[in-house]
Amino acid sequence: MKQASHSPDLTRLSRHIPRTPSIGSTTVTDEDHVHLSFGFAAPELFPLATLEQAAGEAIRTHGREALQYSGAPGPDDIVKWIEQRAHHNGLDVDSAHVLVTYGATQGLSLAAQLLLEPEDEVWTEAPTFFSALQAFRLSGAVIRAFPLEADGLNVELLEQALQEARATERPLPKLLYTMPTYHNPGGVTLSVAKRHRLIELAREYHFYVLEDDAYGELNFTGQPWPTLYSLAPERVIYLNTFSKIIAPGLRLGWMIAHPELIQRLRILMLGGSTGVFTQEIVAALLQNIDMNEHLERLRTHYRQQRDVMAAAIDRHLGDAVRYVLPEGGFFLWISFREVIDTTELQQRAFTYGVSIVDGRSFYPQRDVGHQLRLCFSYCNSEQIEKGIARLARAYTDYVAEQEAVQLNTLEYHNRV
Amino acid sequence: MKQASHSPDLTRLSRHIPRTPSIGSTTVTDEDHVHLSFGFAAPELFPLATLEQAAGEAIRTHGREALQYSGAPGPDDIVKWIEQRAHHNGLDVDSAHVLVTYGATQGLSLAAQLLLEPEDEVWTEAPTFFSALQAFRLSGAVIRAFPLEADGLNVELLEQALQEARATERPLPKLLYTMPTYHNPGGVTLSVAKRHRLIELAREYHFYVLEDDAYGELNFTGQPWPTLYSLAPERVIYLNTFSKIIAPGLRLGWMIAHPELIQRLRILMLGGSTGVFTQEIVAALLQNIDMNEHLERLRTHYRQQRDVMAAAIDRHLGDAVRYVLPEGGFFLWISFREVIDTTELQQRAFTYGVSIVDGRSFYPQRDVGHQLRLCFSYCNSEQIEKGIARLARAYTDYVAEQEAVQLNTLEYHNRV
Ligand SMILES: Cc1ncc(COP(=O)(O)O)c(C=O)c1O
Ligand SMILES: Cc1ncc(COP(=O)(O)O)c(C=O)c1O
Repeated sequence: MKQASHSPDLTRLSRHIPRTPSIGSTTVTDEDHVHLSFGFAAPELFPLATLEQAAGEAIRTHGREALQYSGAPGPDDIVKWIEQRAHHNGLDVDSAHVLVTYGATQGLSLAAQLLLEPEDEVWTEAPTFFSALQAFRLSGAVIRAFPLEADGLNVELLEQALQEARATERPLPKLLYTMPTYHNPGGVTLSVAKRHRLIELAREYHFYVLEDDAYGELNFTGQPWPTLYSLAPERVIYLNTFSKIIAPGLRLGWMIAHPELIQRLRILMLGGSTGVFTQEIVAALLQNIDMNEHLERLRTHYRQQRDVMAAAIDRHLGDAVRYVLPEGGFFLWISFREVIDTTELQQRAFTYGVSIVDGRSFYPQRDVGHQLRLCFSYCNSEQIEKGIARLARAYTDYVAEQEAVQLNTLEYHNRV
Repeated sequence: MKQASHSPDLTRLSRHIPRTPSIGSTTVTDEDHVHLSFGFAAPELFPLATLEQAAGEAIRTHGREALQYSGAPGPDDIVKWIEQRAHHNGLDVDSAHVLVTYGATQGLSLAAQLLLEPEDEVWTEAPTFFSALQAFRLSGAVIRAFPLEADGLNVELLEQALQEARATERPLPKLLYTMPTYHNPGGVTLSVAKRHRLIELAREYHFYVLEDDAYGELNFTGQPWPTLYSLAPERVIYLNTFSKIIAPGLRLGWMIAHPELIQRLRILMLGGSTGVFTQEIVAALLQNIDMNEHLERLRTHYRQQRDVMAAAIDRHLGDAVRYVLPEGGFFLWISFREVIDTTELQQRAFTYGVSIVDGRSFYPQRDVGHQLRLCFSYCNSEQIEKGIARLARAYTDYVAEQEAVQLNTLEYHNRV
């Protein structure tokens, strides 16, 4: 009756473990390979010198506390900075509304745990952020997705679905997950009118909104967007992160929500507050850096990179693709004709020396396969130009081959 | 039909959120107050200077990568160190068996997510680690607890329960959580014979064992204990942490398990590997520190503190309590007569200037209430002596008051 003693019993694992591993973990050692797949920050913009100084300072002045557990909500300084930045961005909050997290990724997990039980409905955009899908799958929730348009989530379809669900007594969502501003991967932004309508629906149908604002500060146009949180603080759980404005390796983000929710989210952290060591270092960094100046540098850089990428696409791919020029963030999302299979195109592009992410990864059912996510934040201009040229060559060869196959099939049929 | 617009709708939250917040988060500003409640490391033993140097080094030499996301399993150096330390402790592993986590706390969460769905059974020791109970509650699992003895978990009772469950077709556990070596809070260690028996049961009844070895290195006697993992690598998920041997504020721990399980646990991390920044700093620290020497310093210090506390208990509380002298770790667990209510005693002790943790917190049902957890790791000798003296005074006054109440009640009854 005993099983073989050297392999584990996989039949006993939870049914909710997602089968698909994470995206973007290619390890390519070829220096010439271009990574348009990595949704990474530009490393040359990391404030390294300031950070080294901040680390020394934090260890010298707060060392013993910084290395201890913190029973309390964590060091004050960082929470104060988050509060002030939130005010600056039009969110009316105090420290009871703030929870420092291990990146926005932990924020996603905590929000899922706060609300979702197996079979609950969570509604998302399609495409949407890959790790959010994983967090929702893990809670055993049912995911239903609504298309993006040039001005963000199709709120009209959402409304129809809500009405229909109510009329037919089918399950209503407990949570709607959205990236209203500078979407990953879609690159689009939700219009102000749709923001208001979405909030009305949340109130009418009693669902929570999980607003992921990871890219909100990377605004290339200067046009301000009202956060959903500012429109309905009692209905919205807001996520943000230092990953895009300082550095992802720090793993530091935050949630903003009603104090009643924050209190419960804190319980879900199991008594470990977020690493005090990193918090003290980042707090010292934030003291020593002029954030508005730093953000201007990032915005200028990323805007230029976006322009380089858009120009390269126009030049090399031309009419083969459609896209909406993103007004902020990291990503350019391109759509081919529907007959193009981006899973195959991605593989071919890889052998041509460029990595991109197949759009399927961002659809809960992986059922839309003629789109790609390109990231303009990580590579320099030269690499972007080179990468897009390679993608275009891969596309041309792929199409030629497809046509040859069709011709062959046609000839074959004609002959038979 | 609309709800008041300023409070969130709490009816829609998951039913699995634990109601009890974390323990040990008292904020007392009185300098004279003694914290025998904190399960904290002794801050004077943190290698601060080496850490500051390591932080500078890591930022200068690995800055740009350390601040980036890591798609891969994370920096090699720290995984290599974990591998080597595991070999040193008799675990036969390579890098495919290792997952670096955000503290052992994340390890607990990940193990719960890997295995448990709502209504699954997880069996634990009673008392057991508070945050583990929280992680299991959060997964909606049913917790069943088995008593500790002077030589660890009562494996005989466990066996009876397994037999009975099988005979009556009641649910068998999917997971057994145990701290075999230097238990928190119990201070006891599982005998070698019981370790072997426990593993036989795991194989016979097909449950996984979650072995929490957070204190394993803090060995005061020199006697080595075989880890459960070394006895059954296919049945055991092993947890450890840098919190007790370097510093908890770093939030860095690790899991050891079969590669098939590690691969799935990695998926549960949602594509965020554990913070590269902290990993690089700790890797540099581990390069610059003589770990065996450092551990000897910790062991000597904590052994002395244990002795100070045990002597103070013998002197001040004498026959009022029983305890097993811990052979390692941070905690001394004392039992009063069963008529003593430690919830009340704890409150009184607090007003006398000493914090301790009511033993109830470590029981899944909070149904055993005549025990206390005392921590000898954080306070210095003088504070320990003072704290135990205060606890003894609180105890004496509490007992005197109880007896007075009983006498009064008796008199009242006699008069009526
Ligand atoms: C939309 C979105 N949310 C959250 C995250 C995760 O951020 P963090 O690094 O803080 O975990 C990302 C990072 O890629 C993201 O794109
Ligand atoms: C038994 C046990 N496991 C795990 C932990 C958590 O360790 P970490 O700080 O690595 O999350 C602790 C810390 O108190 C502990 O006592």
